[in-house]
Amino acid sequence: MAESSFFTDMLQSITDRGRQLLFSGSRSPQVATEVDLRTLCEMLLSSRGEASGMALAAEILERWSALSSDDTQSFLHMLYENFGPDETQLDAAIDHYRMEKSSAAVTSLHRAAEPRRQELLRRLNYAPNGTAKLVQMRQRLLATKAKTAEYEALDADFVHLFGSWFNRGFLTLRPIDWTTPAYILEKIIQYEAVHEIAGWDELRRRLAPADRRCFAFFHPRLADEPLVFVEVALTQSVPGAIKNVLDEGREQIAADEATTAVFYSISNCQDGLRGISFGNFLIKQVVEDLRKDLTGLRNFVTLSPVPGFARWLAQARAGTVNPLLSDAAQETLLLLDDPNWVKSESNRTEVERVLMPLAARYFLTERTAENRPVDPVARFHLGNGARLEKLNFLGDRSPKAMKQAHGLMVNYLYKLDDIVANHEAMAQRGEVIASPSVKNLLNETDESRRAGNGNQGSRAFAQIKNSALGGGRQ
Amino acid sequence: MAESSFFTDMLQSITDRGRQLLFSGSRSPQVATEVDLRTLCEMLLSSRGEASGMALAAEILERWSALSSDDTQSFLHMLYENFGPDETQLDAAIDHYRMEKSSAAVTSLHRAAEPRRQELLRRLNYAPNGTAKLVQMRQRLLATKAKTAEYEALDADFVHLFGSWFNRGFLTLRPIDWTTPAYILEKIIQYEAVHEIAGWDELRRRLAPADRRCFAFFHPRLADEPLVFVEVALTQSVPGAIKNVLDEGREQIAADEATTAVFYSISNCQDGLRGISFGNFLIKQVVEDLRKDLTGLRNFVTLSPVPGFARWLAQARAGTVNPLLSDAAQETLLLLDDPNWVKSESNRTEVERVLMPLAARYFLTERTAENRPVDPVARFHLGNGARLEKLNFLGDRSPKAMKQAHGLMVNYLYKLDDIVANHEAMAQRGEVIASPSVKNLLNETDESRRAGNGNQGSRAFAQIKNSALGGGRQ
Amino acid sequence: MAESSFFTDMLQSITDRGRQLLFSGSRSPQVATEVDLRTLCEMLLSSRGEASGMALAAEILERWSALSSDDTQSFLHMLYENFGPDETQLDAAIDHYRMEKSSAAVTSLHRAAEPRRQELLRRLNYAPNGTAKLVQMRQRLLATKAKTAEYEALDADFVHLFGSWFNRGFLTLRPIDWTTPAYILEKIIQYEAVHEIAGWDELRRRLAPADRRCFAFFHPRLADEPLVFVEVALTQSVPGAIKNVLDEGREQIAADEATTAVFYSISNCQDGLRGISFGNFLIKQVVEDLRKDLTGLRNFVTLSPVPGFARWLAQARAGTVNPLLSDAAQETLLLLDDPNWVKSESNRTEVERVLMPLAARYFLTERTAENRPVDPVARFHLGNGARLEKLNFLGDRSPKAMKQAHGLMVNYLYKLDDIVANHEAMAQRGEVIASPSVKNLLNETDESRRAGNGNQGSRAFAQIKNSALGGGRQ
Amino acid sequence: MAESSFFTDMLQSITDRGRQLLFSGSRSPQVATEVDLRTLCEMLLSSRGEASGMALAAEILERWSALSSDDTQSFLHMLYENFGPDETQLDAAIDHYRMEKSSAAVTSLHRAAEPRRQELLRRLNYAPNGTAKLVQMRQRLLATKAKTAEYEALDADFVHLFGSWFNRGFLTLRPIDWTTPAYILEKIIQYEAVHEIAGWDELRRRLAPADRRCFAFFHPRLADEPLVFVEVALTQSVPGAIKNVLDEGREQIAADEATTAVFYSISNCQDGLRGISFGNFLIKQVVEDLRKDLTGLRNFVTLSPVPGFARWLAQARAGTVNPLLSDAAQETLLLLDDPNWVKSESNRTEVERVLMPLAARYFLTERTAENRPVDPVARFHLGNGARLEKLNFLGDRSPKAMKQAHGLMVNYLYKLDDIVANHEAMAQRGEVIASPSVKNLLNETDESRRAGNGNQGSRAFAQIKNSALGGGRQ
Repeated sequence: MAESSFFTDMLQSITDRGRQLLFSGSRSPQVATEVDLRTLCEMLLSSRGEASGMALAAEILERWSALSSDDTQSFLHMLYENFGPDETQLDAAIDHYRMEKSSAAVTSLHRAAEPRRQELLRRLNYAPNGTAKLVQMRQRLLATKAKTAEYEALDADFVHLFGSWFNRGFLTLRPIDWTTPAYILEKIIQYEAVHEIAGWDELRRRLAPADRRCFAFFHPRLADEPLVFVEVALTQSVPGAIKNVLDEGREQIAADEATTAVFYSISNCQDGLRGISFGNFLIKQVVEDLRKDLTGLRNFVTLSPVPGFARWLAQARAGTVNPLLSDAAQETLLLLDDPNWVKSESNRTEVERVLMPLAARYFLTERTAENRPVDPVARFHLGNGARLEKLNFLGDRSPKAMKQAHGLMVNYLYKLDDIVANHEAMAQRGEVIASPSVKNLLNETDESRRAGNGNQGSRAFAQIKNSALGGGRQ
Repeated sequence: MAESSFFTDMLQSITDRGRQLLFSGSRSPQVATEVDLRTLCEMLLSSRGEASGMALAAEILERWSALSSDDTQSFLHMLYENFGPDETQLDAAIDHYRMEKSSAAVTSLHRAAEPRRQELLRRLNYAPNGTAKLVQMRQRLLATKAKTAEYEALDADFVHLFGSWFNRGFLTLRPIDWTTPAYILEKIIQYEAVHEIAGWDELRRRLAPADRRCFAFFHPRLADEPLVFVEVALTQSVPGAIKNVLDEGREQIAADEATTAVFYSISNCQDGLRGISFGNFLIKQVVEDLRKDLTGLRNFVTLSPVPGFARWLAQARAGTVNPLLSDAAQETLLLLDDPNWVKSESNRTEVERVLMPLAARYFLTERTAENRPVDPVARFHLGNGARLEKLNFLGDRSPKAMKQAHGLMVNYLYKLDDIVANHEAMAQRGEVIASPSVKNLLNETDESRRAGNGNQGSRAFAQIKNSALGGGRQ
Repeated sequence: MAESSFFTDMLQSITDRGRQLLFSGSRSPQVATEVDLRTLCEMLLSSRGEASGMALAAEILERWSALSSDDTQSFLHMLYENFGPDETQLDAAIDHYRMEKSSAAVTSLHRAAEPRRQELLRRLNYAPNGTAKLVQMRQRLLATKAKTAEYEALDADFVHLFGSWFNRGFLTLRPIDWTTPAYILEKIIQYEAVHEIAGWDELRRRLAPADRRCFAFFHPRLADEPLVFVEVALTQSVPGAIKNVLDEGREQIAADEATTAVFYSISNCQDGLRGISFGNFLIKQVVEDLRKDLTGLRNFVTLSPVPGFARWLAQARAGTVNPLLSDAAQETLLLLDDPNWVKSESNRTEVERVLMPLAARYFLTERTAENRPVDPVARFHLGNGARLEKLNFLGDRSPKAMKQAHGLMVNYLYKLDDIVANHEAMAQRGEVIASPSVKNLLNETDESRRAGNGNQGSRAFAQIKNSALGGGRQ
Repeated sequence: MAESSFFTDMLQSITDRGRQLLFSGSRSPQVATEVDLRTLCEMLLSSRGEASGMALAAEILERWSALSSDDTQSFLHMLYENFGPDETQLDAAIDHYRMEKSSAAVTSLHRAAEPRRQELLRRLNYAPNGTAKLVQMRQRLLATKAKTAEYEALDADFVHLFGSWFNRGFLTLRPIDWTTPAYILEKIIQYEAVHEIAGWDELRRRLAPADRRCFAFFHPRLADEPLVFVEVALTQSVPGAIKNVLDEGREQIAADEATTAVFYSISNCQDGLRGISFGNFLIKQVVEDLRKDLTGLRNFVTLSPVPGFARWLAQARAGTVNPLLSDAAQETLLLLDDPNWVKSESNRTEVERVLMPLAARYFLTERTAENRPVDPVARFHLGNGARLEKLNFLGDRSPKAMKQAHGLMVNYLYKLDDIVANHEAMAQRGEVIASPSVKNLLNETDESRRAGNGNQGSRAFAQIKNSALGGGRQ
């Protein structure tokens, strides 16, 4: 089903024919069957590859698909060892460049520095379903444990090629709804990574109602495989809890009554395309599409998980982050150690008072070594030009969310007029653009601290070891 | 029409919005409108390009489309001057590589040697119709007269990118027939480069009958633009004259009565994709497709023009090729100087006797500096694995063909079992694989010459000045 | 092409099989081939028709298609003679009805009064392309000269069935534009009945520009055959002359700049569906479609020919209509007898003064025996709820229009709020709803006449012989 | 979704507009809203219906859809009372016919005998989704308990119209598989009437494997609603038990390895189309389609339920059918009264010996008053030209099948060469064509009985009360 049967069959037919061609010239059949993968790859890169490219490419990828897991590693190693750049040529190209620094010398140098496997991968792509198989090949590469120099070199080649092939210009956005063929829908069930879809009935509730939308990017060569998809709820207010969005019994509205589009789940589908960015384009395109279709929409927000929060909080409680938590905060947070803490209303009140300012700090002041937010989802949306709009205490009580984030969810706001400015604040200064309400959560804490007042609950921090609360450190 | 209107409109909408975004942050509108193309290109390559890539790309390409012809040259020059590799980084990368020769160092070197305009072109491709506009951009580049180092450097970048984007794996073969939308059909009329299509009535005669076929390669992003197409006649014998194929009054046959598929016209459609090879894939794919569809087909041949023959013959008559023509041949060939020579049967008889051995020599022994056939169509088909099958005297009496080739046409034979071997004979040894009948034309001449017999008509060559007949004679 | 090849082939396959079935039981092959059409029709109506309906229907229609023109008449006669109602059953049904007048008796009577050929035609429709062939069958019927009782009876059966099958609910409106497949476009060229399309270039001018539209009704079973189509020009004013619409050099506008949609050509395509009305639905649907798509549209008008005017005027000049023309008018109209009259400006001025009031009279007061306008196009649009908006002197100077209507064209206005009222004025009272300007043309004349003033040119009528200005005045 | 959104929206738009038109001419809005359904129906039949048909039709059907169940009955009654034929005209038409018996008189009589509601229904079909709503209307009619003369008359009108509209020529066969849109697949789950589909996972098992097929008939106007569908298993032998077909763990085969196509479930989807026959066409068309696609197929059989068998057997045991069961048989059959009888192997052996000859008798000799098999599924397949091939003891042990048929299933064989002959044997003589093995089951019994041998188990019948083993007794 991966391509129109006409196309597939035809290619298949050429391939079968080609395989015959390939070996019909061989001296003996034994030799033919013994041709190893490395030889086939060399043949594909040679002149012979021009005449029988599809046949060779298909043969190689078919054999590769049949390899054991260990052997696929050996294959990758073989690509690394034997299909790097030609060092003699590269040295000559460097000498040439050093001598004359002409543009021709640059061109030659660039060409000589390109590992031969890049052209090999391009020719492997001639095969039927070649692209899908090359994506799988990178998926196996990514699955290797040790991130060696070899791994990095091979991955750089895949990333370079996939970056060209999966250029946003070649992607098409398609709505996913209840008229979509079943074999694509079952992939939506399979790939949903944020809020699991339990089965077809739940899928129907997410796709069929008038106030629900779903969109996916597809690539022409992977026509049946969504690359990334987003699920959208059309609402009349910004939801703070996922329950309100997914509840079976919720009241549906007509699409043109909606004022707010809520992006409540974004899932990447192809492991083998990790790091080839589509999500940022997807959201902007969907925003535009919805705006055009539903003129009543005013707000475009996410309802997002906070996958790194619990881990960070554990570190804070362990005293490995600065500033240290106050003793009072430490004490309150002991409540979290009871798996059933959430059932008590008083627990919830106490925890909220301490947790929310810490959450604000998690987003606003904590940074990675690259001066980026520590939360991966925050990195994505803030780097994409969104604003951190609202923190929602206990927005998601599912076991997964309780474990990852003590139930915390957040809304990111996509306001078209501010996207570029927000993006640059992050990109250039590492600054998180947040709504006043989120900033107040943090300030309030600071002020209470400075005032030294007795409100223990809101005194989340014991002391400031350094002054770096603001953004933009370098 | 270039993309589904949904897609185009949506992109357009994002673009318009983006343009607003782009300039809404500027201090003054005057500045905004004065932002020049170079600055916009720098913005697109910068971080800002991540947030508003489509908008920026669209803006740049739109402005570019409005440039005067001179200004497009300036734009290309600007790309050359300002978007080459960063020399400092490149030097550092070279030093690093020279020091440690690690794969990481190669990756860095490859990256540093890549002109910045390659990434710029990739990002320009985000725009609606970006691919089509970049193809046009190269078309303008190719139109420059002077093939300077600058030209070569820029073209290398386009070729590198287009080679990835127009990888055969991304092309789809589609039949072109009388059910094809009119806006594609009019492009077939426009692009036909071999045997002109006078209008819709003639187009219909080429596409609609049961014994005619046409196929084209399309790229998903250039959905309305054929890249290359081939016209096929289904017949019961190998035709020697194009008149038999195109004649209005010819007798049609049912497709399943055909034994022979004749590829009588292959046209590349996109100047901007010159040198990105599709035709070889096209023919093989069409052969396979037809074989599957029409099991009665036994022969796959072309009926091809010989565009370089008249020019070569003029040189031969002027004495600039070796071996020199015999005096008798020279005298006979004077007949060609009368524009009406073809009307006399005796002329035709005489000319044929002299011309055909020379034609055999033209194909079999003449070579370019790269040891390839001098005829460009021959280079294509022989390099593609075909065999030179038959020379057809006066196969095409149209003014164009009389001027280019004194009416000569040839058949190339595609025999699947021999394609790889034929291709390698040419690729590795510059050898032309030809049928006995063609080779006999040459041998006969040589023998007659050697025998010194009185048959002046067939004594086409006066003497052998040197032995450099090139490879491949038998 | 008439149906998806899957469908056609499959039906064909069943049919071929069925034909074999049909005759495999026969005693001898000779007998089989001699089975005549009447017998086959009886078989199709019999029980056997249930098991092998498609095969029998296909066999009958194929044989029918091969009949000579005379033999198709014999076939129709055979349908009349042998497939009428069963008289015995009909008499019994009448007796039964007369006895008890129950609804069951009505049902039986209705059934008994139905000619057997109606069911036969329904079963013939099982065949591949059955519907198309039955439409052809009626076309041949309509071509018979003598409109006998036989003709009327057969035609009533076709009309009854086609009325059900081509119910507006089963028609689909499709835009026809430059992306439409060529084999449908060539039918537009062929079927255009109002302003001839000279070839593909002219077709392109009518379909491709942004300010042109075309729509057609299709039936699912005649998927490649438009039933009726309308050509529309988007303009900024109501045109009075077809030249302005069709002029090659006219200035094009963007679609959303248009205020007016001009229906300048409506053509029925299938002779065999004569009298099965689609045009009225077509116009209303296209109005709605355009309104939705282009919100700037305010006016929906036609630019229509007046095919009956010249004939009527000839009668008026010959004195066979009342009131008689005035002597002055008669004299002026002598100018029309010079084929070149239109070339002189003074002629045009004089003719216009006399002709236009007569044209107003032609539309407003002349009536057929059924109290309908005498002009067939007027009957269509006025019966369809339009208003007679404007008379255009020399709106079309083509030879055809000069001959039919001395160049006269008219605009009919479709104003949605008035359509039902206008329709009823015509349907119930034979009243023509016209704009004041058209009515003034008439009144002016009357008044000038009554005033007995010396303006001879506008005194078009000599006297009123009787009051019979035709029906419908109030 | 019921039609392309373009079409639906456009119609909707016309309708809304039309509704406004309809009432804008009314004297007062109160009157407008009070217009009752009968008046609207009269308006639709009147001249006004020509101008605003779609609007009126849509208004009527929309109001009708909102009626209470009781009111829909009143509506149907109103159609009966007020929209029958015009009796005066009918009487006049009869008199005319009696006078001259001309074909014109027949045409008039047929027209006069047609209830006015037939034209009303045709015009209601103009509305968006009109056809679907009229099918629903008949569904409500069929749901009425009392089958009065009124019911019969109304139903005759629906049947007459639907017979024309759903003519086989207008139906299209479409494969249903895992690429089919979800909203159609969920209808397959919903409509499956023979072997219930428990959910999407089971649906996938029936559609997705290479050795499974499903086909449905669709009508262009009910594009999203299958009319009837058949599920097919591709196998290498004729299965006797449904378990083998539906078993999750069964071994799958490649489609081209199959020799046998098993039609194991045929479901009609639209109650409102009851009695409009499609199933016979469906099977023949699917047979042809499969034959063409999979040339290895040799046998086309069903695996069918026997829904009337248990009821008939109960009557036989109660002594109300002839010939009476033997005492031994009666005693054996007492085993069936234990709900768990099937669990004991000895029970199964005993029951089989008695039950199978009775089953043979049920099919071969029992007849309805119309001399047809008493089993409805048998009537369908045998009337359709199939042969009764095999009786399968305990072919289906599901509760439903145990209740309906004590687990009995049968195979009907579709052999193309015999279909017409088999059909005629049934249609003309009420004769059941059965395989020797089935007939032997019956004969054996008779012979054993005649022989008076002691094999009590197979002596199923006590005595023959009369010799009428032929059809038609009750």
